[in-house]
Amino acid sequence: MRPASEDDILAIVSRHFPVGHPSLLLDRGDDCAVLRGGGPLAVTTDIFAEDAHFRRRYFSSFDIGWKSLAVNISDVGSSGAKPSGFSIGLTLTGKEDVVWLEGFCAGMKALTERFDLAISGGDLARSSLLNVCVTAWGELSETLPRGLRRGVAQEGDVIFLVGNVGLARLGLTALEAADDAEACWERCPVACAQHLRPMPLAFEGMALGRFAVEHGLQDRLGLMDVSDGLARDLPRLLNSRKSGLGADVVLDSVHPEVREYCSGQGLDAVQFAFEGGEDYALAGTCPAEEWQALEALLSGFAVPFSRLGTVRPGAVTLNGKAPSSAGFDHFSA
Amino acid sequence: MRPASEDDILAIVSRHFPVGHPSLLLDRGDDCAVLRGGGPLAVTTDIFAEDAHFRRRYFSSFDIGWKSLAVNISDVGSSGAKPSGFSIGLTLTGKEDVVWLEGFCAGMKALTERFDLAISGGDLARSSLLNVCVTAWGELSETLPRGLRRGVAQEGDVIFLVGNVGLARLGLTALEAADDAEACWERCPVACAQHLRPMPLAFEGMALGRFAVEHGLQDRLGLMDVSDGLARDLPRLLNSRKSGLGADVVLDSVHPEVREYCSGQGLDAVQFAFEGGEDYALAGTCPAEEWQALEALLSGFAVPFSRLGTVRPGAVTLNGKAPSSAGFDHFSA
Repeated sequence: MRPASEDDILAIVSRHFPVGHPSLLLDRGDDCAVLRGGGPLAVTTDIFAEDAHFRRRYFSSFDIGWKSLAVNISDVGSSGAKPSGFSIGLTLTGKEDVVWLEGFCAGMKALTERFDLAISGGDLARSSLLNVCVTAWGELSETLPRGLRRGVAQEGDVIFLVGNVGLARLGLTALEAADDAEACWERCPVACAQHLRPMPLAFEGMALGRFAVEHGLQDRLGLMDVSDGLARDLPRLLNSRKSGLGADVVLDSVHPEVREYCSGQGLDAVQFAFEGGEDYALAGTCPAEEWQALEALLSGFAVPFSRLGTVRPGAVTLNGKAPSSAGFDHFSA
Repeated sequence: MRPASEDDILAIVSRHFPVGHPSLLLDRGDDCAVLRGGGPLAVTTDIFAEDAHFRRRYFSSFDIGWKSLAVNISDVGSSGAKPSGFSIGLTLTGKEDVVWLEGFCAGMKALTERFDLAISGGDLARSSLLNVCVTAWGELSETLPRGLRRGVAQEGDVIFLVGNVGLARLGLTALEAADDAEACWERCPVACAQHLRPMPLAFEGMALGRFAVEHGLQDRLGLMDVSDGLARDLPRLLNSRKSGLGADVVLDSVHPEVREYCSGQGLDAVQFAFEGGEDYALAGTCPAEEWQALEALLSGFAVPFSRLGTVRPGAVTLNGKAPSSAGFDHFSA
């Protein structure tokens, strides 16, 4: 059954998401919602668009709701902020039925509950392709007023990775090639899940923010989320173009599903993982003298971490060789 | 010439918009930007999508940049907040050349400068249709912590309108029907401008917010922007469904271009203007005993205002008759 009007769609949204939230002074439903405000606010916007970021063939509406929010929460978390709310610009095609919309809301709601987020409202439009544009924000303490960020690395710093790389790329590759998504899930379940429903590492980002404050590293602990692959994102983390800094990256912990797939295809698994994309892992830099303390923190995380190398002048190399690809660009020919 | 990469597009954006702004603690370019924060923040999201909200046939890229931001600033202004920043989710088709992108940025920049806004960043994607999703915010004072809003009207209140209605609908109608947009501009320039480049009444909204604080009307002066036409928006302003309130609306000030067009087409100009749509006027309610003071304020505005009627139980009628249309719904059959 298709919803008959915008009001019908909003009624489905209302059934899933409470109108109010402690962080809102004025709930959604008016021209604006009003955030309580207070300290600094980290803000990010990410688009999740049909055929650019997902295909309906193997993305359920739950997956679409989940991932469109997850990629934003990942950005907020990587700044060390506590995710607190979001708004959504949702462009539907008019073909989405009530079951589809319920699934979309359920996927978004799952993350909303995990991170206790306010949904401040948004806008609905109709077009020939699905497009989900989320703006999310999170609270920073006055002790970390600019959040964690890129470009603070210095020569000698340790580069670290929290989470896995390469899995989402495998999920994408496998699901694109498969006639049968179910069989794909059986063959590489972790990779499919990582591509369809990545879990943003926001609690980990917050913990790193707190670590930075406790160790006086507000301007020396670098962090970003790896959304375009390590090959493309590490030079951003190091601000290589301006700083001239790079590293000899050693990547040895590649997930068994990636290793198995690459072995079957005659591909270099480490190179595959390094190019990656949509990993939503966290990459960071830290002064060498703080690494031992940081390692103790990272060891307590529920996701794996690894030390990727040491910052030095020059290019980023992978296991001693220049990487063969610069990653993905939507607008390159 | 088409930009060769995402970086080329971002370089065009950077030439138009300064990176920093006093309201940002961390400028755009990282995973998140960081807003300084402080008081309550009014937040809104509006989509501006090809074929749903605009056609490229008669919308220049300047118009698209302008209007996609204007509709958001209008929402922020109608809450009585001072617009302070925005982020943008921009989905391009890959066919936009450098001249197009320069125009788009220039249109957005014109409003950014008028209202001294920070651009906190955003996201770029590629799809088969243009889609501009803007999230904008504005600062509220602690004396108006929930902003101006709908649904505060009581029986006996005065309903007022700031700005014109019907012009944007005429602009849309004329431009849709015309083979030659230039001729259209000559025939009804104000209507074309109102449809393509509406000026958000944010300074007027801020003045009304200040009036509310000075007169102790924070919870009694209602305001919203008229984006879907008076016929559809007045019941929202009065929260008619729940409150059972309506009004006998008398609309007598219709712009000459609307009057002339409707006369030529054998249409009722008042009805045409009442149904309207995309007017980005402000509609409000105010206790009758404050009307004289409010009228003195409105008289000083650079845009026209009118008194539409008095709130009473029952339906909203227009010049004594039930309106014939409920306005536009993207998702109705």
